[in-house]
This record gives sequence, C-alpha cells and structure tokens, in this order.
Amino acid sequence: MPQPLIECVPNFSEGRRVEVVDQIVAAIRAVPGVLVLDVESDADHNRSVVTFVGSPSAVVDGALAGMGVAQQLINLDEHQGAHPRLGATDVVPFIPIRDATMADCVALARQLGQRAGEELGIPVYLYEEAATRPARRNLADVRRGEYEGLKQALGKDAARDPDFGPTTLTPAGATAIGARAPLIAYNVYLSTGDVDVAKKVAKAIRHSSGGLRFAKALGLLVDGRAQVSINMTDFRSTPLHRVFELIRVEAARYGVLPTESEIVGLVPEDALLDVAEHYLQLNRFKRAQVLERRLAEAEAEAPSGA
Amino acid sequence: MPQPLIECVPNFSEGRRVEVVDQIVAAIRAVPGVLVLDVESDADHNRSVVTFVGSPSAVVDGALAGMGVAQQLINLDEHQGAHPRLGATDVVPFIPIRDATMADCVALARQLGQRAGEELGIPVYLYEEAATRPARRNLADVRRGEYEGLKQALGKDAARDPDFGPTTLTPAGATAIGARAPLIAYNVYLSTGDVDVAKKVAKAIRHSSGGLRFAKALGLLVDGRAQVSINMTDFRSTPLHRVFELIRVEAARYGVLPTESEIVGLVPEDALLDVAEHYLQLNRFKRAQVLERRLAEAEAEAPSGA
Repeated sequence: MPQPLIECVPNFSEGRRVEVVDQIVAAIRAVPGVLVLDVESDADHNRSVVTFVGSPSAVVDGALAGMGVAQQLINLDEHQGAHPRLGATDVVPFIPIRDATMADCVALARQLGQRAGEELGIPVYLYEEAATRPARRNLADVRRGEYEGLKQALGKDAARDPDFGPTTLTPAGATAIGARAPLIAYNVYLSTGDVDVAKKVAKAIRHSSGGLRFAKALGLLVDGRAQVSINMTDFRSTPLHRVFELIRVEAARYGVLPTESEIVGLVPEDALLDVAEHYLQLNRFKRAQVLERRLAEAEAEAPSGA
Repeated sequence: MPQPLIECVPNFSEGRRVEVVDQIVAAIRAVPGVLVLDVESDADHNRSVVTFVGSPSAVVDGALAGMGVAQQLINLDEHQGAHPRLGATDVVPFIPIRDATMADCVALARQLGQRAGEELGIPVYLYEEAATRPARRNLADVRRGEYEGLKQALGKDAARDPDFGPTTLTPAGATAIGARAPLIAYNVYLSTGDVDVAKKVAKAIRHSSGGLRFAKALGLLVDGRAQVSINMTDFRSTPLHRVFELIRVEAARYGVLPTESEIVGLVPEDALLDVAEHYLQLNRFKRAQVLERRLAEAEAEAPSGA
C-alpha cells in the first residue's frame, strides 16, 4: 500500500532571533508523523526556511502549528529584511514527493488556507498550482507591495481580497499558501571574476527573458567568482543537465567555462538520476533497476517480519 | 543503529529446467530475512543467476539452502552450456551494500565455505577478496579446466586442493565462494554495424590489455549494432562516466559515436549519483543532500511511531 509523502517548506519572517525560530520549529516538530529535515536561517533576509515531510494530514497540522507560533512572536510592523514578505508566515508550499500528485497538494493548500483563515484569522492567498485566478499564480505578483502595501490595500481594493480569512490585517500579516513541484537551488560558478558574464548568461537561460521554461536565474559575484544562481522550479520539465549545458554554451561565448556547480540544500533523487541517464545515454533505463528501489519494493511486498 | 545489508548472487548451472530453478529459489526464499530481488535464467549458458539480499546471517543461510537443493538436482556429468562452470552451484559472491565492509563479506564467504564443505561435502575455493592465495584471486583461474578438468586433478594435484571440503568430487562439482564489490553489467552501443570497431574500442578500455583497472570488455554485434559489453567490477574506483567517456574518445577515432548505453539488471544508486556529480561538476556535493537519504536518516533518528 503506497504511503503518500508530502513535503512542506514554510518560510517565516525571522532569521535573527534564534529563540523565535526554535519555538516555531518545536511546534512543527511536536505534530505526530512530522519529520523536520532542515532549518535554514538568513540574517540579511531576516527569514527562515523550514523543510519538513509527513503524511498529508500531518503536514497540514504541522504547518498550522508553525503559523500559530509565528503569528504570536513575529510583528511585521517591526520586521526589516532584504527578502520581500507579506507576513510572519510568508509562504507555505506543499510539494508531492512520493505516491502523491500535484492535485493532492492543491487540496492540502486549500485545507490549510481554510483553517488558517478560520482558526488563526490570517488572510490567505492561494498561489502557483493552487491559485484561484491567473493573477495569483506567480508568488511575486501575490507579494507585490509586501506587507506594507497590503496593509494599505486590504479591505479597500477588492482585487486584494484573500481566498480565505478576514479582509483586515494584524501585525502577523498575510500568508501565501500553494502547491508546487520540488524546487532545486542550483548554482554554477564560472572561470571568471567578471560578474557581467554571469549576468549575461543568467539572462540567456532564464524563462523571464526567453530562456528555459522552469528556470529563474541571476548573475552574482560570490567570493570573487562569477556565479549563475538558478532556481529550478520543475526539474522534470527543465532538468539540471539542460540548464548546466546551456550555461556552458552561453559562457563559452565569453571564453569562460563552468568551474563547478553546487546544489544548495536538498535535491530529490530523481533529479540526479535524470542527469545520469542523460549523460550516459541510458535511453531504456528503468528506475526499478536501481538496487535500493528494487529492495524497497521487495520490502513492501514481503510478508511482515521478513 | 545501522542494519548491515549484504547482497548475494549465486550462479547455478541450470538455465533450462524451470522447475529446478524454481526449487532452488524457493529454498533461498524460505530463509527468514532473505529478499530475492531477481532471477535470470539463460538457456544457452544453461545457467541461472539469483540475486538476493539480507542480513549477514540470513544471506549465508540462504546461500547454503540454495546450494543444498542444487546439489541434489543438478548433475554436472550431464550438464552442457556455453558458460564455464565448476559445479551445480558454480559461484557465490557476497557483496557489501549498506553498512557493511568488504572484510565483513570475506568473513561471510569463509563461513559459507566452511559450512558447505562440512555440511554438504562440496569442495570450496575462496576467490577474489576472499582468496587465500594470489592464484585463486581471479575466478577464471579458479575455474580453469572446468568441472571435467577438476574431476581429473582433484586429489592428485595438491595445488587444486580446496579451501574447505573434501578432495573428491561428486556430480555436484565444486563451488567458488568469494567477496567482491558490486558488479555492473554495462553496454554501450556504437553508431556502426562494424563489430571490429567495438572490438578495438573494447581492447582499448579493458584492464587486461592496458585499459581501466576495474573494467572487463568485449566487442560484440547485437541486432546488427556494434556493442561494447563491459563488466564493471568496482564502480567506486572505475566509475561509469569514465568508461563511457573513454569509449566515446576511442570510438571517435573511427568516426563512430555512442548511440545509447544500457545497464543490464540492477545498479547501486551510488553508481548513478557518482555520474550526476561528475557531469554537473558538483564538487562539494554531500549525499545527505539527497532528499530521500536525508529522510531515511530522519526516520532512523525519530522516536518510534513518528
């Protein structure tokens, strides 16, 4: 019997006060069936990203528990940070990992949205795959004007009415809740210290300026090295190897090579297996040929105790 | 607490009589804690390969059970097939998969050898990592002369004395038992129907003629396509991508490209992750960044019921 596994990656608007982040994470962790995989806090962004997994009902309970604590401890009127944000819990995406579909995750986003609106009194905007209208699909559009702008508009501009919850804002702000494919944070370093090369390459490969459909990219200078910093928003449609090879081709125009690449945080195993299949031209490979997967199948089939 | 997992891949000298193979597999499967992952029978070779996994003690019991049935049902005096063989159970390798070392598998090979010698009266030769002398390291050397040759020599030529068991041979023959790294059966097809190109490329890349340390290779013609057929005997030292790229380079000399490659049977996940890391130049990647591995760790750490 397949056991659906969902990932949830809430972003909280606190990246400096460790004790606040700890209390939020403790509330999530206290929900039975939830496993917290990762907590990353960034002081400049003044933001923390919590990654946890669990059954469908466990991840909804976990997210709601975290939102409840964040609402009590984070005051958006006093919050400053480099990252745009709408609320104490800024964004909550649900992600299908195993034996679950995107439709399942859309349903979870609606469940959480309804409960956060009714039980916590937080205005909720459904985004990406869970969006109720095209204008709310893109998170950047939902977050336009940030907390301060929404405070002015909410209750006056009907276009800003939330999908769930009140049309008034407390200092806990509002939350965007959605469903999306697993996101991969992927960076490629180039053999140059010239950030303009990274910017030109980023522009060439990203969707917004004509590049790959599920790639967002920026050119940065990191420790004196030009870096193309990519957010991969659907690795099954826009795979890692295609991004990497296109960066290689575009960089070559400037006499520059990729020196190395890095994945920040976690990556689904399938994303790396896709890369291996591509480069080895394993055109007839079946994932059940991976020994560990065959073993997991056999364990699932075996009588208990075996 | 890590749970050691060992793979065992006995080869039995029967690939035509399905009912015999079934009885051998049933005996292995009946051992508690054993999971049979795969059974492949080849009529030309008149040989079957059974792949199973389990705890250290379970795999030894499983192998012994299979050997006992094979001994009763297979008569080497009547056996004919394209594949060289010494006995009804021809070869039994133990392979460390998870939380186990090669030394652990050498110890298991000795355990099984002793029991097969004492309990079943089968002469046993330890090979590869379990070999007791350099001349028995290579399986081909152990198997030289096959069953028929051994029948002449055993008891007369002291150099053929087994590591365990009697110096007389029954129609069940002898068995080579050893420990080795996971083996990957890997084929690369070339854009030509000229088998000579595949043979030249195979010669260039294989260890025996000056190529890569842990690659055996042959050039074949398969369905009109030139194929380089490789046995990779230690993918951690001689990885898939290095074999593939060297084939590509050698084939280019003849104006030929790899059209696709294939893995026959099972492959350890690490072998494919190594490939992905190589091509993406993920030089600082940690395997714990693979979401499923982080999840397995978290599940192992979690209090029971979580």
